[in-house]
Amino acid sequence: MVKALVRDAGKERDGPPAGGVLTTDFSEIADDPSIAVVAEVMGGLEPAGEYVLELLRRGKHVVSANKQLVARHGAALFTAASSAGVQLRFEASVCAAIPVIKVLRESLVVTNVHRVLGIVNGTTNFVLTEMENGKSYAEALAEAQARGYAEADPTDDVSGADAAAKMAILATVAFNSRVDIDDVDYTGITTIDPLDVAAARELEMVIRLVGAARLVDGHVDVRVEPALVDKQHPLAKVDGAFNAVMLQGDAIREITLEGPGAGGIETASAVIADITSVIGTMGTGFLQNDAAWRSLPQLPSGDSRSPYYFRLSVEDRPGVLARVAEGLAEREISIARLLQHQNGSGAAIHVVTHEARVGALDDALAELGARDEVHRRSRPLPVISDRGVVELGWA
Amino acid sequence: MVKALVRDAGKERDGPPAGGVLTTDFSEIADDPSIAVVAEVMGGLEPAGEYVLELLRRGKHVVSANKQLVARHGAALFTAASSAGVQLRFEASVCAAIPVIKVLRESLVVTNVHRVLGIVNGTTNFVLTEMENGKSYAEALAEAQARGYAEADPTDDVSGADAAAKMAILATVAFNSRVDIDDVDYTGITTIDPLDVAAARELEMVIRLVGAARLVDGHVDVRVEPALVDKQHPLAKVDGAFNAVMLQGDAIREITLEGPGAGGIETASAVIADITSVIGTMGTGFLQNDAAWRSLPQLPSGDSRSPYYFRLSVEDRPGVLARVAEGLAEREISIARLLQHQNGSGAAIHVVTHEARVGALDDALAELGARDEVHRRSRPLPVISDRGVVELGWA
Repeated sequence: MVKALVRDAGKERDGPPAGGVLTTDFSEIADDPSIAVVAEVMGGLEPAGEYVLELLRRGKHVVSANKQLVARHGAALFTAASSAGVQLRFEASVCAAIPVIKVLRESLVVTNVHRVLGIVNGTTNFVLTEMENGKSYAEALAEAQARGYAEADPTDDVSGADAAAKMAILATVAFNSRVDIDDVDYTGITTIDPLDVAAARELEMVIRLVGAARLVDGHVDVRVEPALVDKQHPLAKVDGAFNAVMLQGDAIREITLEGPGAGGIETASAVIADITSVIGTMGTGFLQNDAAWRSLPQLPSGDSRSPYYFRLSVEDRPGVLARVAEGLAEREISIARLLQHQNGSGAAIHVVTHEARVGALDDALAELGARDEVHRRSRPLPVISDRGVVELGWA
Repeated sequence: MVKALVRDAGKERDGPPAGGVLTTDFSEIADDPSIAVVAEVMGGLEPAGEYVLELLRRGKHVVSANKQLVARHGAALFTAASSAGVQLRFEASVCAAIPVIKVLRESLVVTNVHRVLGIVNGTTNFVLTEMENGKSYAEALAEAQARGYAEADPTDDVSGADAAAKMAILATVAFNSRVDIDDVDYTGITTIDPLDVAAARELEMVIRLVGAARLVDGHVDVRVEPALVDKQHPLAKVDGAFNAVMLQGDAIREITLEGPGAGGIETASAVIADITSVIGTMGTGFLQNDAAWRSLPQLPSGDSRSPYYFRLSVEDRPGVLARVAEGLAEREISIARLLQHQNGSGAAIHVVTHEARVGALDDALAELGARDEVHRRSRPLPVISDRGVVELGWA
């Protein structure tokens, strides 16, 4: 049986679920023995906490996206899960789709992770990045709000409280020792002075809100505070509203996970991954039995598309460049950037194309290469500058 | 029963195992019903392939670090695992301790990953990075060999064959469709011309050996070749011999995993993680029942250590700086970097310390702040410039 607890079953919804799925009565879920796994995406401490505890006690696996709940009441919840022999998973509670909880709990089990450094709040990362570009704190925050990265009331983000809850969860999992949110010493970004931003620049550093959890001589030290980060450090390179978590341990040196740390669909994908992990570990082990369940054809080799770079050595005489451009245009290959250098008695032309079929480009280069005025041509190399995240304004 | 198959049981070993563990007879492992999980770390296609197949057929879970075996004979092995209802895991076969296989198979199950971009060969990444710094290909390769990043015979690395095997495995797992190593179109770095390296620099790009697997209109396109990568792109920022894999999908936008892609202890940690995952999914689910199994004390707040940055507004008169330095030295805080700027009628002093106890620094700043000639002091901010990987020469 599939059920969803909602406040108002009659509310108009995009893609309304089948009849009988929605309920406003928690006991319809708790009392239903056919329900084995429940995802908690209500948020807030109550009644979510009471519900999760009850579900675990009734022997249902629970997947939670609730950062505050796990950070504040994790101990009670895990005890209940352990007693009932069921699973409590919470990937979505920290950094949305970045799978840092699974990686820490299942992949880095023997690496003695002793330091976790994280940019775990996208709002403040965006604000600090904008301040670096000359905006004041107020202007940068307004921009973050306009883009939907900051809430109307951004207190939890800019005070460091949101990051502190995430670091409490990460430290607990990394060190296998309970770290409550109250154990995290945190400071926000509201008092960052433009003088410090300027000094950081002069020192070839940037200011970032960094969560740091460390094991020091058998003690746990977890803090969130603005830090100066060397521009060459991976954490300084985390773009805009992205998150990154760097895990340092004896056997792994360091592993960094980076991605979008918030967002509805990203969080939902982490919830589904947890549900799948619960089901996949309930005895069937289906996740591991075959890496391939479909058989897709290969793309014909010439059909691969990309922007490309190539180099031609040509005679240095009038019209060569125009004729090269014409030869490319005939095959619908357009030029994005071009450099020309003297090279001995001839010239080297370096071309970056817009996206093109490699087959068409190969044909064009073969044709150009056969001309007397073209002495040599290099193999085309693909150019990578796009990312999966155009809405964040990357080139 | 614990057993290890070796070529020579009599060989002298560091930390020799207990009596009866070593054997030179494969059937002692295959025939032993008390052995439930076997880790294959022999390498090579045979006899490793024959052994793994036999173990799976006998109902034993297998964990393999064997890239060539999984890339070439994955189909037969997975079929055998599926028929016997046992698990075949292979995290260590791709990028050592970077947990990209688990993340793709267990975390990103509903995200429709449609593009995988990877720097999956550390040797070539190191060589290309050195060429950017002015070395020739031969010099850069010699340097990689001197540092142990490249083998005496580097053919598999520089030809792209090693990266091709890894990309075949990654594409298979990402797209759930079998990609054989022979389906991967690959080119190495041996023909990279210094002219192209220079042109890339002028275009604000770098040349890297990039593995790219894409889903294009229901077709699979997997290739490994030198590419020009924008300097702002995360793949351009992968340091030296590190690896990185960027996963782009509908629900996650993009998630990047970065870390050491080779090394004995890193690979061993991935093998142990896979064994733990097998055991953790054999019905007990112990991995998920409690996030904390020990109780570590908190580090006293003043004992946290870091390099710190702080700012003082001081009167602009002789000796102020000397007296500030003295005040710090009395508490054993030493100065690493210092900037001084005119600021209105006074001066702003920006200080970066060497590693210091924050408690000692707070005391020193309280004492300095109480002086007449010091008008204001900022909160100290930690400075992050170190990484977990000093042996690779990071600052």
